[in-house]
Amino acid sequence: MAQSKIPVGILGATGMVGQQYITLLNDHPWFEVRYAAASPRSAGKKYAEAVKGRWQLTKTYAPHVGDLMVEDANDVSRAVAAFKKGECSFVFSALEMSKDETKALEEQYAAAGIPVISNASAHRWTEDVPVLIAEINADHTDIIPLQKKARGWDRGFIAVKPNCSIQSYMKPIHALAQAGYEAKRMFVNTMQAVSGAGYPGVPSLDMIDNIVPYIGGEEEKSEKEPLKIFGCIDGGIFKNAEFPLISAHCNRVPVIDGHTACVSLEFAGKKPSSMDEIKKIWAAYKGLPQEAGLPFAPKQPIIYREEDNRPQPRKDRDTDKAMAVTIGRLRPCNIFDIRFVALSHNTVRGAAGGGILNAELLKHKGYL
Amino acid sequence: MAQSKIPVGILGATGMVGQQYITLLNDHPWFEVRYAAASPRSAGKKYAEAVKGRWQLTKTYAPHVGDLMVEDANDVSRAVAAFKKGECSFVFSALEMSKDETKALEEQYAAAGIPVISNASAHRWTEDVPVLIAEINADHTDIIPLQKKARGWDRGFIAVKPNCSIQSYMKPIHALAQAGYEAKRMFVNTMQAVSGAGYPGVPSLDMIDNIVPYIGGEEEKSEKEPLKIFGCIDGGIFKNAEFPLISAHCNRVPVIDGHTACVSLEFAGKKPSSMDEIKKIWAAYKGLPQEAGLPFAPKQPIIYREEDNRPQPRKDRDTDKAMAVTIGRLRPCNIFDIRFVALSHNTVRGAAGGGILNAELLKHKGYL
Amino acid sequence: MAQSKIPVGILGATGMVGQQYITLLNDHPWFEVRYAAASPRSAGKKYAEAVKGRWQLTKTYAPHVGDLMVEDANDVSRAVAAFKKGECSFVFSALEMSKDETKALEEQYAAAGIPVISNASAHRWTEDVPVLIAEINADHTDIIPLQKKARGWDRGFIAVKPNCSIQSYMKPIHALAQAGYEAKRMFVNTMQAVSGAGYPGVPSLDMIDNIVPYIGGEEEKSEKEPLKIFGCIDGGIFKNAEFPLISAHCNRVPVIDGHTACVSLEFAGKKPSSMDEIKKIWAAYKGLPQEAGLPFAPKQPIIYREEDNRPQPRKDRDTDKAMAVTIGRLRPCNIFDIRFVALSHNTVRGAAGGGILNAELLKHKGYL
Amino acid sequence: MAQSKIPVGILGATGMVGQQYITLLNDHPWFEVRYAAASPRSAGKKYAEAVKGRWQLTKTYAPHVGDLMVEDANDVSRAVAAFKKGECSFVFSALEMSKDETKALEEQYAAAGIPVISNASAHRWTEDVPVLIAEINADHTDIIPLQKKARGWDRGFIAVKPNCSIQSYMKPIHALAQAGYEAKRMFVNTMQAVSGAGYPGVPSLDMIDNIVPYIGGEEEKSEKEPLKIFGCIDGGIFKNAEFPLISAHCNRVPVIDGHTACVSLEFAGKKPSSMDEIKKIWAAYKGLPQEAGLPFAPKQPIIYREEDNRPQPRKDRDTDKAMAVTIGRLRPCNIFDIRFVALSHNTVRGAAGGGILNAELLKHKGYL
Repeated sequence: MAQSKIPVGILGATGMVGQQYITLLNDHPWFEVRYAAASPRSAGKKYAEAVKGRWQLTKTYAPHVGDLMVEDANDVSRAVAAFKKGECSFVFSALEMSKDETKALEEQYAAAGIPVISNASAHRWTEDVPVLIAEINADHTDIIPLQKKARGWDRGFIAVKPNCSIQSYMKPIHALAQAGYEAKRMFVNTMQAVSGAGYPGVPSLDMIDNIVPYIGGEEEKSEKEPLKIFGCIDGGIFKNAEFPLISAHCNRVPVIDGHTACVSLEFAGKKPSSMDEIKKIWAAYKGLPQEAGLPFAPKQPIIYREEDNRPQPRKDRDTDKAMAVTIGRLRPCNIFDIRFVALSHNTVRGAAGGGILNAELLKHKGYL
Repeated sequence: MAQSKIPVGILGATGMVGQQYITLLNDHPWFEVRYAAASPRSAGKKYAEAVKGRWQLTKTYAPHVGDLMVEDANDVSRAVAAFKKGECSFVFSALEMSKDETKALEEQYAAAGIPVISNASAHRWTEDVPVLIAEINADHTDIIPLQKKARGWDRGFIAVKPNCSIQSYMKPIHALAQAGYEAKRMFVNTMQAVSGAGYPGVPSLDMIDNIVPYIGGEEEKSEKEPLKIFGCIDGGIFKNAEFPLISAHCNRVPVIDGHTACVSLEFAGKKPSSMDEIKKIWAAYKGLPQEAGLPFAPKQPIIYREEDNRPQPRKDRDTDKAMAVTIGRLRPCNIFDIRFVALSHNTVRGAAGGGILNAELLKHKGYL
Repeated sequence: MAQSKIPVGILGATGMVGQQYITLLNDHPWFEVRYAAASPRSAGKKYAEAVKGRWQLTKTYAPHVGDLMVEDANDVSRAVAAFKKGECSFVFSALEMSKDETKALEEQYAAAGIPVISNASAHRWTEDVPVLIAEINADHTDIIPLQKKARGWDRGFIAVKPNCSIQSYMKPIHALAQAGYEAKRMFVNTMQAVSGAGYPGVPSLDMIDNIVPYIGGEEEKSEKEPLKIFGCIDGGIFKNAEFPLISAHCNRVPVIDGHTACVSLEFAGKKPSSMDEIKKIWAAYKGLPQEAGLPFAPKQPIIYREEDNRPQPRKDRDTDKAMAVTIGRLRPCNIFDIRFVALSHNTVRGAAGGGILNAELLKHKGYL
Repeated sequence: MAQSKIPVGILGATGMVGQQYITLLNDHPWFEVRYAAASPRSAGKKYAEAVKGRWQLTKTYAPHVGDLMVEDANDVSRAVAAFKKGECSFVFSALEMSKDETKALEEQYAAAGIPVISNASAHRWTEDVPVLIAEINADHTDIIPLQKKARGWDRGFIAVKPNCSIQSYMKPIHALAQAGYEAKRMFVNTMQAVSGAGYPGVPSLDMIDNIVPYIGGEEEKSEKEPLKIFGCIDGGIFKNAEFPLISAHCNRVPVIDGHTACVSLEFAGKKPSSMDEIKKIWAAYKGLPQEAGLPFAPKQPIIYREEDNRPQPRKDRDTDKAMAVTIGRLRPCNIFDIRFVALSHNTVRGAAGGGILNAELLKHKGYL
């Protein structure tokens, strides 16, 4: 069976997002982890050895992954050799280096013929790199042939996913935009889980009987990345959308997984006739992942809960393989048009799971 | 020494806010707790006995309070008798009954000649009852003679304090308004401590690895009470201010004490020239409590912290006897004019401490 | 397919343990929930309606359970009617009444011909009722014919499971006893999860920045129940074992699920030659559930982890369907012979999952 | 006023224990912080600057401390110069270096004439260095002249305090020993606060919905240090006591401050006649700090609480300036003689506060 699956590699395989990729791919119908690379500190060890005492997840890795020899992620030639042996058709990048180092290294992989599906933020503002949320801008993959051509790359390319903080509110506003109700301005207040900061990450002295009303760089990402995702390809590069204008405030709260966002939204033009109309739009919302039946696609990307005290991270984050967005508390806003609360699992939908869905989309489109 | 202090009573003395009143008054220079009333369940027991196993605070009650016989709060005649014996000049109400019961009972005390300084929400929308934040609307005490006259009350009256959720953002916007920068519209997102819900209050199953994006009635209070506080007396009753228009989202987070608010604010007319000007306005802000040197008044009502990750509840809530508001992260807003984070201790400044400061104000004004 | 499964009922179906039963039975190969009973407050509502806003678990109930009409658990005749219609072959009892009420009501069900597999503590000290841990004392089911005969019951009987606090240390000491190393004396210190107290259960004011070194009745159960489980049938009733003598200290800690126990153990006679011998004994340990391949049986009942900082509740509680015990830190004791830390999921292995495994055992033995 | 106080220095002044020293000494009647030293990273900055963004405590430092220029703790000559200027009569060591480095550096200070009162573990097993708990072994200061002589030190010497984990149970067993009831064997299970690991210390991913049943080196310290404290001076060095034999299990729990210990104790010979006798012994317990009225001495070193669910860290740790031990749940043990739960504040009594009390003792004895 293994032979018929596409062999994939994980860069940064021992880190927290790397661990998520590996467990989520345990039984994937299309992909199989056959290559693991990490920092020089882990290189040369078996994967099981490299993560011993550092494993953060409840689920564990598949036995065959435990036996993989970890390679040095800085050494692209190792991945090329694995590619030639049929052990690494493309890589998921969960690198935890500086932005500049990540940017350069991911380009080296792509130049060497290894497509890179990245979780890192390094290439999100590279003009010809798509930032994909599979339900929203599947057509942004159209830039890949242009990217390859411009870079002189043959088989390799780079595609990335956006920041975990925006996952919960992008699909609901996209659903409304598709129905003719464009968002003009938004206030977003996030309460984000500690897993977003990796391990060791946030000290417990900051998260017991406390919250921290600041996450470095997070507000900027939450405000700007949506504009690229809602943008379009123009002359071989992405042109940002002008709207919605977003004002974000990002907080760290004592939650393991699951980012919650309180949203107030103003429509640009036409407004929905009622809260019920909005709920119907959300319930009916589907994208290419649903239509194509991609393995990691949630059946229903947006779940609305009628209870007045939901969504809650611990209770709702795992909905539909932790890939669905859960929304609640839709109500009129005193200042803008509507208010609601949205929740998304930050290390699954917002990280490794979102990356896998992007890879499925790219495979479906014929790029992998 | 005790004889020279004003004897006060606590209604709801065994509950969480009642406990706060009692510990905060332990060494008060003006007031001394000489009368404690609670539900019939506690009545007839010594206070020490009544709170045994139910005491929630780190600090404990003064020995003489432990020896007080708890009276039935429903029986106003007991307070009147205590008044006649010189043991109860006025009462702090921390009653935990239904709104209607509280409203009626507080009126009975006032009618019987016992002034009521209340923490309860019951009378906040009674037209001739002032909702006091001592730094902001000390002049609202001017309604007391009118209230007494209209009600036919001789010595008694009712004055209340607003909800704990608004304490952190009212003083900063009042300071700006006084400086000529009126707030027109505000988005407020609160992250509120569990002590606000009393004991047993919020179940731990909801507060471990979780937040709850809803607190019943809290958003309405956060949006409406400021309008009364910024209002004026007109024909013997209060007339609300028209602004600021507030859109509030209130969340419960795993914090013991300290409500945090993320605020985005739009000015009505003139705008401050810079963030520095705003910080100077806040630093210089003072009200009657500071000018009169009231015992519970924070020296500086608004403390600004320059660190990018403050205020934090555990680290900042106790600033200046837990009576100061701590602010941080002042920065321009993408949509409105400015953004900031504000923090206030909900059971001290937002409850018992605020009530005591109101009593000090009323004493200073000659009403007690 | 549903027809070929055994129809089961849940008493106390809307409570926390009831919810666990229902989700755990979602895809059970042998049993199917066809009958749900709860307090009169829920009776007459559809199950989905009855649990709305009170659902505590991440997983949800099967659609057909949501459609069940909840019956009044006090009305045994409803269960008898369901039995006659082929909708309730036996019941899992997760009743949350007083001990005396539970005891009487469970007897009524058994007398009416409905076998009761109970989570409640009411019948644990009834002389002819077995307290089952399926791997340890499967032979205690031999009392069922005697119980039926003595009570004059035809089809019904009562079998119970022990307290959740003892699950983590019973199997390790049983494994050693089977290998010839009987436990004589034990110090046990538990750190127990809040889910053990149900909902609302432990207030968050007690579990943020705090622990509570007391759980009512828990130490007594932890010390005494093992003696019945290690006992034998003698003259139609159970005779307790004399050993091990246990001294338990039970604490509540801010953990959602998973009870941890620190154990110091003294052997009665022969002692294992080394820590490695003990680990081998634990690794090889199997009971009837494993031999018979019962659906809920963990493949390996005892998992030993070599890392020095495990087991940890959040990371290890879900091992093997949350039915395995995880052990770590085996080392010599300064006073007794050995020390170790053991962990078990309290609401799965220690409650509903353990009850289901008991039912599987009873079905396997021909009693259901 | 400052001139009449003894000027003291803090080594490791910017770390967590250093911060505690500085706030606890804010208004000390005898000592005043006039010298602050830390790692080279902080050296050359004003203290206020050096701790900006790293301050962990609710209380803040005195203004004059904020203005101190931080020196390099490795450069003993700076402290000597300060001594000569009358700014550093002795130092509190809260160094956070390796054990060997700390050991050597503390000896350099002592050799240079600066007495060292240390929180570090480096010298706890140095044969001629006393490990002091002021109520228990004040007479161990008698070794100081011998230490000075053997080392050839003139004015300097080294005295240390024991590990924070043993503070809660040492005084209760000392009180019983003094009354004639010597402890022979003890099982101790600690549940320790995260502040014990410093900042950043324990990751929040390990402390949300989790506990960790291991703290490196802590069990060894908890078992061995009591033997030195209960030992005696013999030939210029300490000779350990033989008893009590202790078996410790140390756990990390999600608590900010306050270590809790569950203790089972066996007496060596004579046993107390009743639980009440023990409570009376504890209530009457006093040591030299109480008799001499040392400023940091708790009035009553051991507080017993009768409620069945106390002590609790958040509610009891701050008792009597956080210097008292709180005990509860005294009851017979099934195996040994008695069981109880004890609590002590780990960063005050167990660290800086304990160090200050030791300095007061040494001043009282004429060594400072």
